[in-house]
Amino acid sequence: MGMRAALLASHILLLCFYGSLVCAKYNRYNTASGIVEGKLNVHLVPHSHDDVGWLKTVDQYYVGSNNSIQGACVENVLDSLLMSLPRDPNRKFVYAEMAFFHRWWVEQSPETQEQMTKLVNAGQLEFVNGGWCMHDEATCHYIDMIDQTTLGHRFIKDQFNKVPRAGWQIDPFGHSAIQAYLLGAELGFDSVHFARIDYQDRAVRKNNKTLEVVWRGSNTFGSSAQIFANAFPVHYSPPTGFHFEVDDDYVPVQDDPLLFDYNVEQRVNDFIDAAITQANVTRTNHIMWTMGDDFMYQNAETWFKQMDKLIHYVNKDGRVNALYSTPSLYTDAKNAAKQSWPLKTDDYFPYADGADSYWTGFFTSRPALKRYVRMLSGYYLAARQLEFFVGKKPALGNTFDLGDALGTAQHHDAVTGTAKQHTTDDYAKRLAIGATKAEALVSSSLACLASKKPGSQCSAPTSTFSQCQLLNISYCPPTEANIPAAKNLVLVVYNPLGWNRTDIIRIPVQDANLIVKDSSGNNVVTQFVEIDNVTLNLRKLYVKAYLGLSPKEAPKFWLIFQASVPPLGWSTYFISKSSAKNRRNGILSSSSNPKSENIEIGPGNLKLSFSSTSGQLKRMYNSRTGVDVPVQQSYLWYGSSSDQGQASGAYIFRPDGARPTIVSRSVPIKVIRGTVVHEVHQQFSSWINQVTRLYKDKEHAEIEYTIGPIPTEDQVGKEVITQMTANMVTNKDFYTDSNGRDFLKRIRDFREDWPLQVTQPVAGNYYPINLGIYTKDKKTEFSVLVDRAAGGASIHDGEVELMLHRRILFDDGRGVGEALDEQVCINDTCQGLTVRGNYYISIDKVGAGARWRRTTGQEIYSPFLLAFAHDTLENWKSSYFTEGTVMDPNYSLPKNVALITLQELDDGSVILRLAHLYEPSEDAEYSTLSKVELKKLFANKTIKELKEMSLSTNQEKSEIKKLSWKVEGDKGQEAEAVRGGPVKMSDLIVELGPMEIRTFLLKF
Amino acid sequence: MGMRAALLASHILLLCFYGSLVCAKYNRYNTASGIVEGKLNVHLVPHSHDDVGWLKTVDQYYVGSNNSIQGACVENVLDSLLMSLPRDPNRKFVYAEMAFFHRWWVEQSPETQEQMTKLVNAGQLEFVNGGWCMHDEATCHYIDMIDQTTLGHRFIKDQFNKVPRAGWQIDPFGHSAIQAYLLGAELGFDSVHFARIDYQDRAVRKNNKTLEVVWRGSNTFGSSAQIFANAFPVHYSPPTGFHFEVDDDYVPVQDDPLLFDYNVEQRVNDFIDAAITQANVTRTNHIMWTMGDDFMYQNAETWFKQMDKLIHYVNKDGRVNALYSTPSLYTDAKNAAKQSWPLKTDDYFPYADGADSYWTGFFTSRPALKRYVRMLSGYYLAARQLEFFVGKKPALGNTFDLGDALGTAQHHDAVTGTAKQHTTDDYAKRLAIGATKAEALVSSSLACLASKKPGSQCSAPTSTFSQCQLLNISYCPPTEANIPAAKNLVLVVYNPLGWNRTDIIRIPVQDANLIVKDSSGNNVVTQFVEIDNVTLNLRKLYVKAYLGLSPKEAPKFWLIFQASVPPLGWSTYFISKSSAKNRRNGILSSSSNPKSENIEIGPGNLKLSFSSTSGQLKRMYNSRTGVDVPVQQSYLWYGSSSDQGQASGAYIFRPDGARPTIVSRSVPIKVIRGTVVHEVHQQFSSWINQVTRLYKDKEHAEIEYTIGPIPTEDQVGKEVITQMTANMVTNKDFYTDSNGRDFLKRIRDFREDWPLQVTQPVAGNYYPINLGIYTKDKKTEFSVLVDRAAGGASIHDGEVELMLHRRILFDDGRGVGEALDEQVCINDTCQGLTVRGNYYISIDKVGAGARWRRTTGQEIYSPFLLAFAHDTLENWKSSYFTEGTVMDPNYSLPKNVALITLQELDDGSVILRLAHLYEPSEDAEYSTLSKVELKKLFANKTIKELKEMSLSTNQEKSEIKKLSWKVEGDKGQEAEAVRGGPVKMSDLIVELGPMEIRTFLLKF
Repeated sequence: MGMRAALLASHILLLCFYGSLVCAKYNRYNTASGIVEGKLNVHLVPHSHDDVGWLKTVDQYYVGSNNSIQGACVENVLDSLLMSLPRDPNRKFVYAEMAFFHRWWVEQSPETQEQMTKLVNAGQLEFVNGGWCMHDEATCHYIDMIDQTTLGHRFIKDQFNKVPRAGWQIDPFGHSAIQAYLLGAELGFDSVHFARIDYQDRAVRKNNKTLEVVWRGSNTFGSSAQIFANAFPVHYSPPTGFHFEVDDDYVPVQDDPLLFDYNVEQRVNDFIDAAITQANVTRTNHIMWTMGDDFMYQNAETWFKQMDKLIHYVNKDGRVNALYSTPSLYTDAKNAAKQSWPLKTDDYFPYADGADSYWTGFFTSRPALKRYVRMLSGYYLAARQLEFFVGKKPALGNTFDLGDALGTAQHHDAVTGTAKQHTTDDYAKRLAIGATKAEALVSSSLACLASKKPGSQCSAPTSTFSQCQLLNISYCPPTEANIPAAKNLVLVVYNPLGWNRTDIIRIPVQDANLIVKDSSGNNVVTQFVEIDNVTLNLRKLYVKAYLGLSPKEAPKFWLIFQASVPPLGWSTYFISKSSAKNRRNGILSSSSNPKSENIEIGPGNLKLSFSSTSGQLKRMYNSRTGVDVPVQQSYLWYGSSSDQGQASGAYIFRPDGARPTIVSRSVPIKVIRGTVVHEVHQQFSSWINQVTRLYKDKEHAEIEYTIGPIPTEDQVGKEVITQMTANMVTNKDFYTDSNGRDFLKRIRDFREDWPLQVTQPVAGNYYPINLGIYTKDKKTEFSVLVDRAAGGASIHDGEVELMLHRRILFDDGRGVGEALDEQVCINDTCQGLTVRGNYYISIDKVGAGARWRRTTGQEIYSPFLLAFAHDTLENWKSSYFTEGTVMDPNYSLPKNVALITLQELDDGSVILRLAHLYEPSEDAEYSTLSKVELKKLFANKTIKELKEMSLSTNQEKSEIKKLSWKVEGDKGQEAEAVRGGPVKMSDLIVELGPMEIRTFLLKF
Repeated sequence: MGMRAALLASHILLLCFYGSLVCAKYNRYNTASGIVEGKLNVHLVPHSHDDVGWLKTVDQYYVGSNNSIQGACVENVLDSLLMSLPRDPNRKFVYAEMAFFHRWWVEQSPETQEQMTKLVNAGQLEFVNGGWCMHDEATCHYIDMIDQTTLGHRFIKDQFNKVPRAGWQIDPFGHSAIQAYLLGAELGFDSVHFARIDYQDRAVRKNNKTLEVVWRGSNTFGSSAQIFANAFPVHYSPPTGFHFEVDDDYVPVQDDPLLFDYNVEQRVNDFIDAAITQANVTRTNHIMWTMGDDFMYQNAETWFKQMDKLIHYVNKDGRVNALYSTPSLYTDAKNAAKQSWPLKTDDYFPYADGADSYWTGFFTSRPALKRYVRMLSGYYLAARQLEFFVGKKPALGNTFDLGDALGTAQHHDAVTGTAKQHTTDDYAKRLAIGATKAEALVSSSLACLASKKPGSQCSAPTSTFSQCQLLNISYCPPTEANIPAAKNLVLVVYNPLGWNRTDIIRIPVQDANLIVKDSSGNNVVTQFVEIDNVTLNLRKLYVKAYLGLSPKEAPKFWLIFQASVPPLGWSTYFISKSSAKNRRNGILSSSSNPKSENIEIGPGNLKLSFSSTSGQLKRMYNSRTGVDVPVQQSYLWYGSSSDQGQASGAYIFRPDGARPTIVSRSVPIKVIRGTVVHEVHQQFSSWINQVTRLYKDKEHAEIEYTIGPIPTEDQVGKEVITQMTANMVTNKDFYTDSNGRDFLKRIRDFREDWPLQVTQPVAGNYYPINLGIYTKDKKTEFSVLVDRAAGGASIHDGEVELMLHRRILFDDGRGVGEALDEQVCINDTCQGLTVRGNYYISIDKVGAGARWRRTTGQEIYSPFLLAFAHDTLENWKSSYFTEGTVMDPNYSLPKNVALITLQELDDGSVILRLAHLYEPSEDAEYSTLSKVELKKLFANKTIKELKEMSLSTNQEKSEIKKLSWKVEGDKGQEAEAVRGGPVKMSDLIVELGPMEIRTFLLKF
């Protein structure tokens, strides 16, 4: 039979068949058009979205191991870019994640580094974002965001002398005001680009051509901290059909008439169709195509080969103009178009990608990881202070590894709790390694700082001090150990705040027969509280699970006392066994079973009333301010939807019914009263315990909750909240912070930008909390502060709820592919994770709450740092100063200013970052221009040079060039924001206006 | 809770954490060791096995489209090699498939070509095999193998001035003797490397360390055409765990102590373990790792990065030595070891990879494609002759495209019938395009050659002639058309053989009232046979299916006559309507229904006797030689096994029971007798028809079978055979050709190299047939020749069977993923493919069969080439010579020599390839040194220069350097083979010894 295709042949005959062996047909593709005025310009922005850990660990992604989970290797991306970019000088690529780039960079030969540097200098490789990771915007603290961005930006500056111009937050699940103005404009960014905004919002914006806006994220700074914000019309991948990854099933441009399937015209038409579709929802003649996706460019050439051809043939066609571009070139083009842009204020939370798909679960997911990150964030801040005070000495430990780990942990699948479990374990491991290094440094530095013979103390690592990372579950070997008769348990307390500070120390001990003396030798008032079984059970399980240790004897008591420490300084407390007759100050707390209906507790101004019958909180009363509010508090859980269409999961919060189930309407109550603290212990169920603490000198209630293992025998996932209901008329309004800094007003069932169609009355009203949430009515503010990121809402007037823990049995279909069902295991025996944490409640007269929130918030973030030793009093005092500060002893920072960074760089220069803590109208006294005297702050050092820098310290503040933007309806009547003036070298006084953060690079 | 991994941290602490932002840790890997004497040397041979079509078409593989079927893009391989090889001058890569490399090469810029040339010159890129494809060794004709290899080798020579040294047949499904000595040693190869040999054979060879052998594939040339043959111990992929493709799940070597999972020692140990495992089955201190797989190196850097590290660390370890290598470097090392090697003769067929997995199905799979390839192979040979005679004129058409398509079709998943259907269609399309180009060239060249005014005829394409590719189904528009009264149907017959030749012409006509005159004007004896319905039905269906045409009127008769044509020359026949009285020579055949039991047919010496009752063949008798053999012939089918463990399929022949089912024991018989031919028409079933033809001047029977659609309503796949049973005592022996050239003795249920365990008594005794199969006993030879590749066997003594067609309902699990169920469709209406073909039977006195087989074989391969025109006799004769030859009119080639290549190259030089057709003892007269007089062969041209070349014309024969090998048990007593001596420019006489093929490059 034979010839199966003679006919098919006929339409090929027109093509070029030269009939000789070598018929050269090389095409040199012209990719050099640049922008063409008067045409639709399609900016192709090649990128690879390289998650700093998600389905695989960051190292696995980097080296390309564990590819059975996901074929992804960042080395391939960067290796192949290095080879492909030089093949055409018009090719461009943007790279965001410095955690990966840095790994790659340090492994390269000098020649390779030089090649890459050439590409950077030529603008072929442009860094966007440029932080260590693409941080999350809901669950990160702004200090962490600054630190991780600084880490990346300093690296870029050091190695390439480059300054990123564009924010590239393409994947985070909603976008914060802080991102826009602080981690955007204040970095010197002209623009920020992202994919994920609410689906309703996007639909409206596409319709109105308002996807691109001028975003003023700060009420305080308004247009002076605005940024051009580009929300993508679809996602951060290319238009359908233009996804050119190696091994992907795409239609290559085939321009070789000697091969079958020549398709240039078809592909050009496809391109133009896709371009016009996008142009129809975009202002100006410029559209951007994000030419990449997760871990794409495993072989960069596959992308560039196709793009080269498309640019060449599309431009030959001439209907539209295609070009290699970057977000900053795109932004320049947008800016040059002299278009007016819509104004956007506030933020883009919460994010939903469907009617039942509110990404508000991750605000709380993996609360233990979230706490670990926050705890180490404060520790990192303190550790860098100490590292600076004594000078960098690698032998003593370092803070780099902790900074690296924390930088990685800010990734939008890390602290968010949306990574796979093994990846989450890896984050924790990195943090633990970093913490261990930092702990060594802290111990050595503290010993050196306090030493009377600093030379000898600072040359080698010291084992003088030990520290306790598991204090919250009463595990602290140095305090638990028996104190030999002649010796003391020496406790050095470091205060990383710039204010003198009095706070509570709480350490586990074996013996109630202890006395505490302060650095002057005075006895300190103490209180001993029996450690409850809830804590001891946690201690047993988690010490074994985390450390692999089974400590023989459990401590019996919490030793509690108040410590007072100078700013950026330390105080020493000496704890020793007392003779029996000397027990007066070691008062064991009294526990009582009250008879009356109302039980009132509180050794200080704040009083809480509980019902003795139901055990429920009934009222809060501040005797100093007279504020008196009926308040109820209870635990409830939302059943997680297991709807196959959309289950609740790591990302998404979808309750199976709108109303949560109350855990207990009546709880037993145990009250402990002492001179330092009153405690109310309540068991809401077998898996929810709570201790409420009121301290003599504090006007807030501290709530310690212990939740877990969340039962799932009923096959229902549970998302546990604490709900506080005050008798207040709050009119749907409440306030939540933006990354722990600005407070934004939220209105239930309402969005500023579009008429909200309410589909999820609970999940759609959740917002991320990092600092706190408050409500107010005409008289009162009801404020809650948190110790970690969490979701919070006010679903009913007067009510505030926080989601504290989640245990879910299904995956929510956003890629992670695991149910959020955290376990703690000893060998192969596992149980659901128990989470312990604190939140803090205050009631204040309206207008007075900010002071508590700001001050207490800073204290929660930067707790005392405790270091323990055993020694005789005499030995100790002969070797160490028992109290001290690096500041002028008579100086402290203004109460409205926090020292948020003090860090020595590798070259010896020092980053100083000061933050005004108040918004303009928050507080009559503190919402004012404040001054910091650097000469007194650095009492023993001389500042030789001071440069005011951008937020990330990668350029001088004065060098930042800002694009100006026309904004629709902008009448230019905005009041000018108060900012501090230039710092004179003569007096070295730094002024800070409300909400201002100023960053300086110092040389001493 | 927090800190989930403090303990985990502890064992990391020893590693290097420098604690500063940039801590350079670049490793320069040392890959320069080369071979180290005294150590086990692991030769890493990087390669990518790039099938020239299989699951995707060759173009789809090249550009990387259709990746949903298979992620594979050859452009990526070559692009990324170009980028990765220069990164370390020790990196190497071997590339085999020039069909792909050529595509890539012609698309590159001069700069890129220069870079690649540098890599080739530096030995970093080495071409292995170097043919257009990695041809199959079972179903390819040796002339095709030479042509496709020449195409690739000439390209390599032209572009790089390089000569491949190693055969690289890693994937073909068994290995032929022709491959070893002709497409191996005679190319100048030192070695051939392959993966697939029988599993029993491999087990024995591993045990005996005899995987590597010295292979003497030729009985004639013995050690003078031997080659070092390396059969891999496992496959052509790397050892398990060393497969480094982008996105693959492998364990990368991690030598960065700053990342987790540092594993250098583990990977080094893994490497050494795998090396020792292989060393245990290998002679000498050299083993080869094939570092690649199908379409690997999509990003070459992923492989080289791992191999760089492995070489570096393994050599640092020092227990073994690893190096980048190539098959030729490996072979040199083997040779230098002065080891004695086992001797291997014959071949490696059949191939089985399991007890029930004999790869003997593909010998027959897709018989229509196999025929199309063979038909065009002969056409290509003839077309190149004509192209040379008139000189290359691109405007007249070309033979390159056909050579390209045929080169591609020799691929081991092309002509084998083991590609997916869409790929098979693509091969057919390419062949059809090539044939169309060649047809244009043939028409023009023939017109030019025969023209009395060659200048005008040769300057532009001519439409003088048309040709008919579908003659076998009676479709030929120029012969079917009515011949106008004044005109003739002019038939120009070209004879591509070097001998004067008389053969049968058979063309479909409408009218039995035609007379034929030869070029001298003499009437020719003709016979008209009615075209049967079987043929007319095929014509209707397939002309529509293949050409999209529905010809209105069907021709009624076959016009049959004998034509005689000079060597390399042409004769013209004039066919015209006769007046009624002039019908004497137009004898309609007589059809008879005989009465006697025996029906004897045969107008010449050979007579066949059929039973008039059963219709079966009973006897063959040659009246000239007196040979008289009882012979039965019938059709049977093997049911295809559908066993899920191993189904029969495109590759594998596995009958569901050992015995085949007979189609019919009694068939109707229709006899047609005429002066030219006697025909016996038999219908064995509704789907099997046969015509047996005996010609007056031929001593063989021509069997035309028409098989299909094979019924599968019973859900049983069927593999149809013709079985001929002669009454001969053959003692298990039979003979099959090797790629259409040498005949090898086969012994049923026996292998020369190891004690065969018979698991498949039928499939395990099948061998590939390209020329023919014969048996013999003490008196008689029974020979069968084929018109295409097919499987054949002698399952019982005296019996010969050929598998002619296969239709199977299951896939056999070797990757193609489709059942071999060929369909022919008109629009959406499909039916199983019908296959029509011929085989030829001869009976000869023992020792006399070769002459028939060799001569007839050559005539089957190179049939007359027919070209048709309509013109008046006068016009024609005034314009054209009616008969002619390019040779001296008194000369013809010796009957034992064939001109197998005459081809003008792009530079005007000409390849002349002459083949002696006989083995040393085949024929008393012809198995002798023969002489060809080039001066007479090229009567009208003057040879200015003559160089004897290697088989593929890429080096002068005298330049070939051969390695010498020690062979176990070799006593050096082999008789020296007869080869022709040097050609003197004075007489230009070429001598050829038996089986000798000599290749010359001529300049005229």
